[in-house]
Amino acid sequence: MAALVECVPNFSEGRRLEVITEIADAIREAGARVIDVQADAAHNRMVVTFVSEPALAVDAVLAGAAVATQRIDLRSHRGEHPRMGATDVIPFVPFADLPMPVCVELAHACGARLWKELHIPVFYYGEAAIRPERRELEKIRRGGFEDLRDHITEPDRVPDEGTAEVHERAGATAVGARIPLIAYNVNLRTTDLQLAKDIAKTIRASSGGLPNVKALGFALADRGLVQVSMNLTDFRVTNIWKVFTVIREEASRRGVEVDASEIVGTIPLAAAVGIIRDAVVEPAFRMDQILEKRVWAAE
Amino acid sequence: MAALVECVPNFSEGRRLEVITEIADAIREAGARVIDVQADAAHNRMVVTFVSEPALAVDAVLAGAAVATQRIDLRSHRGEHPRMGATDVIPFVPFADLPMPVCVELAHACGARLWKELHIPVFYYGEAAIRPERRELEKIRRGGFEDLRDHITEPDRVPDEGTAEVHERAGATAVGARIPLIAYNVNLRTTDLQLAKDIAKTIRASSGGLPNVKALGFALADRGLVQVSMNLTDFRVTNIWKVFTVIREEASRRGVEVDASEIVGTIPLAAAVGIIRDAVVEPAFRMDQILEKRVWAAE
Repeated sequence: MAALVECVPNFSEGRRLEVITEIADAIREAGARVIDVQADAAHNRMVVTFVSEPALAVDAVLAGAAVATQRIDLRSHRGEHPRMGATDVIPFVPFADLPMPVCVELAHACGARLWKELHIPVFYYGEAAIRPERRELEKIRRGGFEDLRDHITEPDRVPDEGTAEVHERAGATAVGARIPLIAYNVNLRTTDLQLAKDIAKTIRASSGGLPNVKALGFALADRGLVQVSMNLTDFRVTNIWKVFTVIREEASRRGVEVDASEIVGTIPLAAAVGIIRDAVVEPAFRMDQILEKRVWAAE
Repeated sequence: MAALVECVPNFSEGRRLEVITEIADAIREAGARVIDVQADAAHNRMVVTFVSEPALAVDAVLAGAAVATQRIDLRSHRGEHPRMGATDVIPFVPFADLPMPVCVELAHACGARLWKELHIPVFYYGEAAIRPERRELEKIRRGGFEDLRDHITEPDRVPDEGTAEVHERAGATAVGARIPLIAYNVNLRTTDLQLAKDIAKTIRASSGGLPNVKALGFALADRGLVQVSMNLTDFRVTNIWKVFTVIREEASRRGVEVDASEIVGTIPLAAAVGIIRDAVVEPAFRMDQILEKRVWAAE
């Protein structure tokens, strides 16, 4: 296969099956490979995961957005999840060794077309952010559709693409580029919850610990263990081996052993290769040294 | 893609470009994806690496073997590499999560057809061996074509498929199933070559060390280091993390530090996942948790 990009658009529809299907079908019919569709009725929201050649990805997500713009009216939309658009968020994510700058370019091409073709104002976030303060999606979307509608003309709320007015029914869309987040836990052989909370505080970025690490301490009461539960928001900066060894060291200083760790869900191949690079001190180890990658990536 | 198998047939032709091309083309035209063709004039031997759906793999390698049988005459073949057949060795190798028993079945189907269609007697080796003493290819091939021709009727030399007579021109073929070998080195911060040799001896299987490990000690004189250089012949039994930690421990006991390690060439994804499983104590980590694998393997 040629290089691929992953795209994970979120749409504000989680209840009407015919709309959910119509959006996913539009993406598929534009030539993308839809890997997963998840809809949640309480959130009234759906998440499509698709991959495609980079050249096709913008067409595919715009086909979905066109349906969402026609079929969703935010003025009457209710759901638990914060949202500001019928097509709420469009992140482009590198697949295998696709460089991040390609994803940033796709995000900007997509944003320009969302405005031009569907008249939806766009905010760029993540690595595609044009204003540094817009890197965090939460900051762009604070207050949701209703708040943005009333405040979009304010200097710090005006969109990056389009005029300072929300689309009457479809609101606005955040378009971005980001790498996949890794969910990772380390379980410790103690029932001392405070110890897990202390270690979580030591390593989390917000308390001055390791960059790009979010961490909390939990009790696993039924197993007689405690857990340091983490999100690694940029494994290129802080990867699993680093947090594993720091937590093991911090626990050991307190006389506690690691029981095991848990990689939750999936990790990118690049992260797996990075863990090996760190763990066995093999700084030159590359993704192309994975036997199957050579075959798969050449398809 | 559907499940794939890798096959690495070795043919006794490394000089006549038209024969080399004809063999590789026959395999390609049978529907396999030829990844690599290496020919060596001194060895007078070529190695084809191809992948295909399991159902196609036997057809593809037989197409190559048919050309080799027509075009190569072992009675006049000379080369440095030991060989007993025009089609000398056919190993089937699992790709991604293809189970080894599938490779064993393919080897047996291939062997039966080599005899039936091309009248070439077959010896099964590796995990496809029927006689335990034939697991090692070297033992089957000892003495080469000329020796086998004279001794094939002896009880311990009779083939597993076919009658006890070599094919007049094409000899006999070893057909097997095996997992990929891993070449791995650990470099130590000392110029004491004996130390590397001692550690190599401690860990190699043949001196009672770790199973499925071959190891030698070398000097890296220009870098002021020594190296423990290894082949791991079955990473399912002894993988990189295990030898890395044992060597680091042995070196540390002698007051020497690890400089770095080197993974030479490629390793299977299953081995990479295994290293992570061992290094961060994550016994449940699976190949399907590699993000890209889900997409690639579904092609």
